[in-house]
Amino acid sequence: MKFVRFAVQDSRHTGVLKEDTISVIKGNIFEKWDYTGQTFSLSEVRLLAPLEPIQIIGIGANYAAAKSELPRELPSIPVFFFKPVSSVIGPNEDIVIPTAIKHVKFESELAVIIGKEAKNIAKEDVLDYIFGYTIGNDVTAPDYFHEDGHWTIGKSFDSFTPLGPVIETELDFKSIHVKAFLNGVEKQNSSTDLMIISVEQMIAYLSTVMTLKPGDVVLTGSPVGAELVSANDVIECTIREIGTLQNPFVAEKERVNV
Amino acid sequence: MKFVRFAVQDSRHTGVLKEDTISVIKGNIFEKWDYTGQTFSLSEVRLLAPLEPIQIIGIGANYAAAKSELPRELPSIPVFFFKPVSSVIGPNEDIVIPTAIKHVKFESELAVIIGKEAKNIAKEDVLDYIFGYTIGNDVTAPDYFHEDGHWTIGKSFDSFTPLGPVIETELDFKSIHVKAFLNGVEKQNSSTDLMIISVEQMIAYLSTVMTLKPGDVVLTGSPVGAELVSANDVIECTIREIGTLQNPFVAEKERVNV
Repeated sequence: MKFVRFAVQDSRHTGVLKEDTISVIKGNIFEKWDYTGQTFSLSEVRLLAPLEPIQIIGIGANYAAAKSELPRELPSIPVFFFKPVSSVIGPNEDIVIPTAIKHVKFESELAVIIGKEAKNIAKEDVLDYIFGYTIGNDVTAPDYFHEDGHWTIGKSFDSFTPLGPVIETELDFKSIHVKAFLNGVEKQNSSTDLMIISVEQMIAYLSTVMTLKPGDVVLTGSPVGAELVSANDVIECTIREIGTLQNPFVAEKERVNV
Repeated sequence: MKFVRFAVQDSRHTGVLKEDTISVIKGNIFEKWDYTGQTFSLSEVRLLAPLEPIQIIGIGANYAAAKSELPRELPSIPVFFFKPVSSVIGPNEDIVIPTAIKHVKFESELAVIIGKEAKNIAKEDVLDYIFGYTIGNDVTAPDYFHEDGHWTIGKSFDSFTPLGPVIETELDFKSIHVKAFLNGVEKQNSSTDLMIISVEQMIAYLSTVMTLKPGDVVLTGSPVGAELVSANDVIECTIREIGTLQNPFVAEKERVNV
């Protein structure tokens, strides 16, 4: 089943997409919802990010270039980071490059959406806690990485977390490819079996630290091939079974000095 | 004015505290609220964290030991980090030390609560965007810092962000002392004029990166003197004009292996 959030004129709705028809629903997708009876054609709406995340948690450097390069031992502490919910945008919205820099990086990723409160869960049970999957673009400004290793600012700018186009609830994430096309040219294309820390491992690990909640989004890392881009580039992040998340890069217009 | 959140039996309320009496309110403290007419005595309620933050943003290493040690130049990129909202607890709740380690650090801090959406604001205007102030304890497990500098996991465990006891809306934060008492012994006591990056500078800077929203909490850094503590210790974080945030440290009981 494919969930979408969308705008029609000034109103926002949640719905279920089937072929090109969206059936509007009311309620909470993680709890209880019902069809309202209203429908829209996909072509008459503007898709939004398919959810408003509670938290966004990313993992760093999580893909090997080839199976032969997968490490034998996993790190004892994976590199996790948070992105602010204020950084979320939807399909086709502008990714804004801060004034002070010229380049940012795209990172196409499988985004996992938590559906049930999860604390101290075993990796064998992780699938029971996943609601569905979307595509995330973990846009990053390496120029804003702190020299002591903190990535916070470089990943936190408004518009730096495009999500979408849909939440697919039926996906076998072990058999998909995560791709990115820059101005139509393929730059990333990796099977998820090149992940160093698996989806189950990362979510089980996170659940030993923090209580994961419905609406939390885990960005599972980006394949090799992410590149620096600049204004007027267009990025498409694609997972065939979910769709394509396309966003243009634009330059920030103005900014106060502080 | 002092806002509190509290529980009485199974119900939760928001109220305004005056001396020992809480007047219950309804509505959104950031927008529009009214008194309901109901009151409670402070002694008959259990105080909760005074708000449910949208995001929690911390700043690293932000106090000098003395005025003579304040750096002349500010860092071009301050060390900011996010803490998950799942880490928030209220006054007197247990701070849980993860099974695998013996020690964690307390860090008593002035916590600033954003009251209005803020993007690209100048530091001269920051006060207009602040709703009020509370005390935060930025509990940290340095054993979980990643060797490449990422603090995320070490600051994200459930219970690692005590907040409270009240939101004080009338506070001149330039003339306060941030203190901590460990088992009754003073360990931290610094005037906020020992901050390296001022409250106005950090919020103005953050607003150039991300849109701050009502309910965002900025932890403004901890004075020198934070120490490692272990189970059965009790920490009191105190700012005289706001109150005392007391929490006991306890050992985690059990944990699955992942």
